[in-house]
Amino acid sequence: MHLESFLQQMLPEIEIELKRIVDESRQQLPSIPELHQFAGDGLNGMLGYHLGWDSPNVIMEMKGKRIRPVLLLLACQASGGDWKAALPAAAAVELVHNFSLIHDDIQDKSPLRRGRATVWKKWGEAQAINAGDLMFTLANQSVTRLAETLGSDTAIRAANLLHTACIHLTHGQFLDLYYETVDEIPMSAYWPMVEGKTGALLACSAQIGGLVGGADEACQNRFAEFGRCLGLAFQVQDDWLGLWGDTALTGKPTESDLVSRKKSLPILYAVEQKQLFYQRWKHEEILPADVIGLVGLLESDGAQQYTLDTAQALTEQALTALEHASPPSDARLALFELAEGLLHRKS
Amino acid sequence: MHLESFLQQMLPEIEIELKRIVDESRQQLPSIPELHQFAGDGLNGMLGYHLGWDSPNVIMEMKGKRIRPVLLLLACQASGGDWKAALPAAAAVELVHNFSLIHDDIQDKSPLRRGRATVWKKWGEAQAINAGDLMFTLANQSVTRLAETLGSDTAIRAANLLHTACIHLTHGQFLDLYYETVDEIPMSAYWPMVEGKTGALLACSAQIGGLVGGADEACQNRFAEFGRCLGLAFQVQDDWLGLWGDTALTGKPTESDLVSRKKSLPILYAVEQKQLFYQRWKHEEILPADVIGLVGLLESDGAQQYTLDTAQALTEQALTALEHASPPSDARLALFELAEGLLHRKS
Repeated sequence: MHLESFLQQMLPEIEIELKRIVDESRQQLPSIPELHQFAGDGLNGMLGYHLGWDSPNVIMEMKGKRIRPVLLLLACQASGGDWKAALPAAAAVELVHNFSLIHDDIQDKSPLRRGRATVWKKWGEAQAINAGDLMFTLANQSVTRLAETLGSDTAIRAANLLHTACIHLTHGQFLDLYYETVDEIPMSAYWPMVEGKTGALLACSAQIGGLVGGADEACQNRFAEFGRCLGLAFQVQDDWLGLWGDTALTGKPTESDLVSRKKSLPILYAVEQKQLFYQRWKHEEILPADVIGLVGLLESDGAQQYTLDTAQALTEQALTALEHASPPSDARLALFELAEGLLHRKS
Repeated sequence: MHLESFLQQMLPEIEIELKRIVDESRQQLPSIPELHQFAGDGLNGMLGYHLGWDSPNVIMEMKGKRIRPVLLLLACQASGGDWKAALPAAAAVELVHNFSLIHDDIQDKSPLRRGRATVWKKWGEAQAINAGDLMFTLANQSVTRLAETLGSDTAIRAANLLHTACIHLTHGQFLDLYYETVDEIPMSAYWPMVEGKTGALLACSAQIGGLVGGADEACQNRFAEFGRCLGLAFQVQDDWLGLWGDTALTGKPTESDLVSRKKSLPILYAVEQKQLFYQRWKHEEILPADVIGLVGLLESDGAQQYTLDTAQALTEQALTALEHASPPSDARLALFELAEGLLHRKS
């Protein structure tokens, strides 16, 4: 069975689980008929909007790709478990991801996400903070629901993995926001930022999948390593796409990572080389007209090669970890396919 | 043993527990020496500042009164447990309370809390959102640590109580923010707001205390009722103090709840009476010079009496619940003392 077949089974179940969680949280609240009239669906309506349920025409792309829960369910299945047992945890990691997106959008003042207005843009910053807080609460609630079918010990262990990932997530976001305020950072400072922002939750998703599926601790750790390296490779490739992807040079150069002075890996590498790129970089503001020339300097300083080599090495590290995390199976094959798909995308 | 003696033992232990949690979260993060130099204590430093640890001169008043953890520990002790076993849960409710304060201050744009600059005022909104998110994570992590000494089942039950309280907390905050955008709300809409903002976390604190102390489910529910009514009575009395307290009439009338058109209980009551107060209220902006006259109208419409009666009724409901929650003991006596102290404050 291929990834596509797993997706056809899993994606609808993930949506059902997420909807159940959001609906149940509303049912726990006191019903105030006069209020419903003017406050509408309240916070729960905001959550549904962010998750893409407000209109039947919202396509999967606009809902987000649900990569983390799929990773978790496949890791569970590949460890010999039944993926349906892991649904509360799969919903939890997706809710954590989306809570962090709601808050990130406020922090970055982003007006759009997946082609639609962000929650803060629609309901204001104050209510968007609040909507994120509720979503985070529901994530924590959902992971403990594993206790109902798998016992409290497993639920506590999964909850602890999720909490640790969230500590790293907030730390990664701290670094990302902090780096925007300083001119230069060493390349070594790049890794804890992406480990936190991307690696930690993917690692935790794969690891909880292994845990729920019955993998022993060594195999759970290999799943974590798989998720972590996958996340890092994904981020490095994202940085490469930002400068050399299909639309990076042909699209709007005003939005180039060079103009915004993003701390992306190729740029940090070239800055540390202190060669041609750096001589131009350190002195002046970067204008859209400079972009093509600077990309050329990045190439001649070896920054493109370094970035591609790094993505390749991380990908191999991820796939090796996966190979040792579980015996061959359809689900493991689907995980390889998922990893390949993420790492060979063109945009 | 009186409340004061319990406080002398409990307050230092609560601080130690909170500090341990914040320190341990830092130790879980990768150490980057070059980074520490410029990013300082990062998010953890913000948490420490908010909790009042940045200077040895910060007095208890500035740290907040730690009412929720004390309530939890006393409920544990009154249920026949050892309050020290409940410290991870006590820290958790205090962290939830403080995470919500950090986010509330951003939402309300408040520059000051307890006489000091708020976290967002010092570090900006983006990092303050993030600091709140980390504190919320640590709260969730801490409550599950009950598993280490009391077993996973109790930890899961306590975590679920905390999550339910957080759902109510975000809903109460939603209503509070929402009410600011509408002219009139029915008095019935007041209660879900204060239940969420004040009642839910106090209820959960007392209930978790009972749970950890070994109370049966009926007694746990009575503790919850005690905490809930205590919270509501506290809020109603706060509304009374806002209009009739020592400084309400003699202080700055520009800051009166009347000028800000706060949806406080006496005002909502008088609006529903549609008598003298309402005739004046519905038409015009309230100026500082109108405050004394309007307070007089509230009194003649019976709003002061209604508010005092409601606070009294809720207080009695709280104390009756407490009486049935546990057998007489020093700790129960201290809980009565705590309740009386909260409800008979003058400012």
